Amino acid sequence: MALVNEHFLKLPGSYLFSEIAKRVNTYKQANPEQKVISLGIGDVTQPLAPVVIEAMHKAVDEMASESTMRGYAPETGYSFLINAILENDFKMRGVDLDADEIFISNGAKSDTGNIGDILGVKNIVAVTNPVYPVYLDTNAMAGRSGIFEKGLWQDIVYLPCSPDNDFVPAIPSEKVDIIYLCFPNNPTGTTLTKKELKKWVDYALDTKTLLLFDAAYEAFITEDDVPHSIYEIEGAKKVAIEFRSFSKTAGFTGLRCGYTVVPKELMGEDAAGKPIPLNQLWRRRQTTKFNGTAYIVQRAAEAIYSKEGQKQIKDTINYYMENARIIKENLEQIGLKVYGGINAPYIWVKTPNNMLSWEYFDKLLNEKQIVTTPGVGFGKSGEGFIRLTAFGKKTDTLEAMKRIRM
Amino acid sequence: MALVNEHFLKLPGSYLFSEIAKRVNTYKQANPEQKVISLGIGDVTQPLAPVVIEAMHKAVDEMASESTMRGYAPETGYSFLINAILENDFKMRGVDLDADEIFISNGAKSDTGNIGDILGVKNIVAVTNPVYPVYLDTNAMAGRSGIFEKGLWQDIVYLPCSPDNDFVPAIPSEKVDIIYLCFPNNPTGTTLTKKELKKWVDYALDTKTLLLFDAAYEAFITEDDVPHSIYEIEGAKKVAIEFRSFSKTAGFTGLRCGYTVVPKELMGEDAAGKPIPLNQLWRRRQTTKFNGTAYIVQRAAEAIYSKEGQKQIKDTINYYMENARIIKENLEQIGLKVYGGINAPYIWVKTPNNMLSWEYFDKLLNEKQIVTTPGVGFGKSGEGFIRLTAFGKKTDTLEAMKRIRM
Repeated sequence: MALVNEHFLKLPGSYLFSEIAKRVNTYKQANPEQKVISLGIGDVTQPLAPVVIEAMHKAVDEMASESTMRGYAPETGYSFLINAILENDFKMRGVDLDADEIFISNGAKSDTGNIGDILGVKNIVAVTNPVYPVYLDTNAMAGRSGIFEKGLWQDIVYLPCSPDNDFVPAIPSEKVDIIYLCFPNNPTGTTLTKKELKKWVDYALDTKTLLLFDAAYEAFITEDDVPHSIYEIEGAKKVAIEFRSFSKTAGFTGLRCGYTVVPKELMGEDAAGKPIPLNQLWRRRQTTKFNGTAYIVQRAAEAIYSKEGQKQIKDTINYYMENARIIKENLEQIGLKVYGGINAPYIWVKTPNNMLSWEYFDKLLNEKQIVTTPGVGFGKSGEGFIRLTAFGKKTDTLEAMKRIRM
Repeated sequence: MALVNEHFLKLPGSYLFSEIAKRVNTYKQANPEQKVISLGIGDVTQPLAPVVIEAMHKAVDEMASESTMRGYAPETGYSFLINAILENDFKMRGVDLDADEIFISNGAKSDTGNIGDILGVKNIVAVTNPVYPVYLDTNAMAGRSGIFEKGLWQDIVYLPCSPDNDFVPAIPSEKVDIIYLCFPNNPTGTTLTKKELKKWVDYALDTKTLLLFDAAYEAFITEDDVPHSIYEIEGAKKVAIEFRSFSKTAGFTGLRCGYTVVPKELMGEDAAGKPIPLNQLWRRRQTTKFNGTAYIVQRAAEAIYSKEGQKQIKDTINYYMENARIIKENLEQIGLKVYGGINAPYIWVKTPNNMLSWEYFDKLLNEKQIVTTPGVGFGKSGEGFIRLTAFGKKTDTLEAMKRIRM
């Protein structure tokens, strides 16, 4: 019989959001008359921007005619989209990148999961704690995490983020090879200032550490001294891969588009210490295991970069950030400790009376019919917290706050 | 510095189709006045079916309104599509599968590449020769292939397919754990009868070998005794994973949709010999590293299963198969040895005068302005052959044949 990948067998229980979905479905089946409001999974609720809809109709029509239909897309993306990204996401922030440093994909979840394909199994990996589970689970699957014991992977270095350090992780005291950083952060909704991120880049330059920088939530930044891209920091191209997503920026969770930046000057090394450009390896990975993002989806993504598109997606982001304000203020008013929600669509809430995360999750589901995400699902340091998202409809968000205050 | 995945460094040169694209671009730049006709990469040229266009416009409109927009899709696919697949692709051929045995994805290339994630590194892998390069390259990346020497991966077991055995591979004489089978075959265009495939299933049942069955081209089958799904053979659910694609069936190369069937009774084993259901592992892989196929694309795929949809895609398949007939007949008339093209959109051609594959590729490009695929790009046994595809426009196919006959 074929041997399975044994590392899969070390994974604890089911993937966080599958477990939440299961509990919610069980509740709904038992209580079909109750209206359940989800402030749990970070899924958007607002329709796509009119420019996006228009671009997609146009692209669909192109696929209907022999002279304009498109077959396989370039595996790393169409130039029209790559150029729009270079101009808007980077050049306008003073960052120069080349077209062959951008890799269009069908989403940041796949990219942050797949990036491990090009990296050796023996690297020591560090993550913040709490953390987006995909980073941990995919490293565990690859055999980089050791075994899971008492809520921790034995071979992973954890960098705790809590109110004690204002959710700014400390530089690791031991040597690590790869560090995942997600800022604005999922799940805590907190972020790093330019000065704080510079410390990380300088440290990475000093120690030749690879930073995997997940900037999926950059569009929600409201404060000036918070970097949208790690490449705003000098030297970052030598140490960092950056992941971007249209899922939250433009509501593409159901369309699937993201991109990854792998600068050409960024090196890994082989066992003999010879520098190997990661850009080449990622290109080889993507051209071999991926067949391009749908043309109509790339046209949809391009559309958000027009002047009108930028205004439309900004309006939706403002709508969500108004939800964030509503959640934050209401919960503070009833005396809960609340973090995030200023530069990110997530609100990180300390449970009352030191309840465990899943206890408070079940209580809010059963008593208030509100779905949240248990903080402990993001790691041990998330225990005693829940995450709320601002991606709900405003009416639902207001209704949820009313229920919680009752 | 982070260690790279050393197995990537063993990969020879660039991915086949990238190399072809490079040579073609070089030729075009040097000869901008020449009209180059591609019968090389298997990319479609006919527009999407009207039912597909209509379904996509409708789905795009749904994304424009708060009450009908869709966010994250279920990672393994929407029920509407899974049910259409179960009914049309399987039940109508006498195969009963459950909904949770179907995994919708963004294409068979990714699935055949990613399937290795759930399998141990120490499995012995066998492939036919010639073979679709993705099977080999992805196993090499995972460390299952050893080193590449004289055109062969040292740890891979090759099953030659040539005119000598009518392109029916022999059962391996040594113990292997995993065998990739692609029928109708890419690149040779040949296939297996039900009786021949039954031998493989029986062998796999006897020896507990895992079959990875790539059925991407099943829609092109014209002969009655050729199975469309491996599950038409009794016992196959215990030994086979099947990959399906909408790329060629319905011209979705630029849309990206496929699916993988992992029966629940199919087992791998852990190091202690304990059976592990592969269905669960693949579900864990997909829910962790994949975030669902776009809603509009899944609606597009669903549309091909309507009565009208079936007729429309069949018309396009007939159009391509008419090209296959034209190519086959013309090349036979000028005395070339030609295989395939009856149950598959590929024609496998012996080079004249024992030319090497790349020699004949360059000759056809430079003298006839026709792009083909060098057979040796699919493996050592492909040396001395080229692959032509029937996916061109009919006028181009006729023009190409005229040039070749001149």
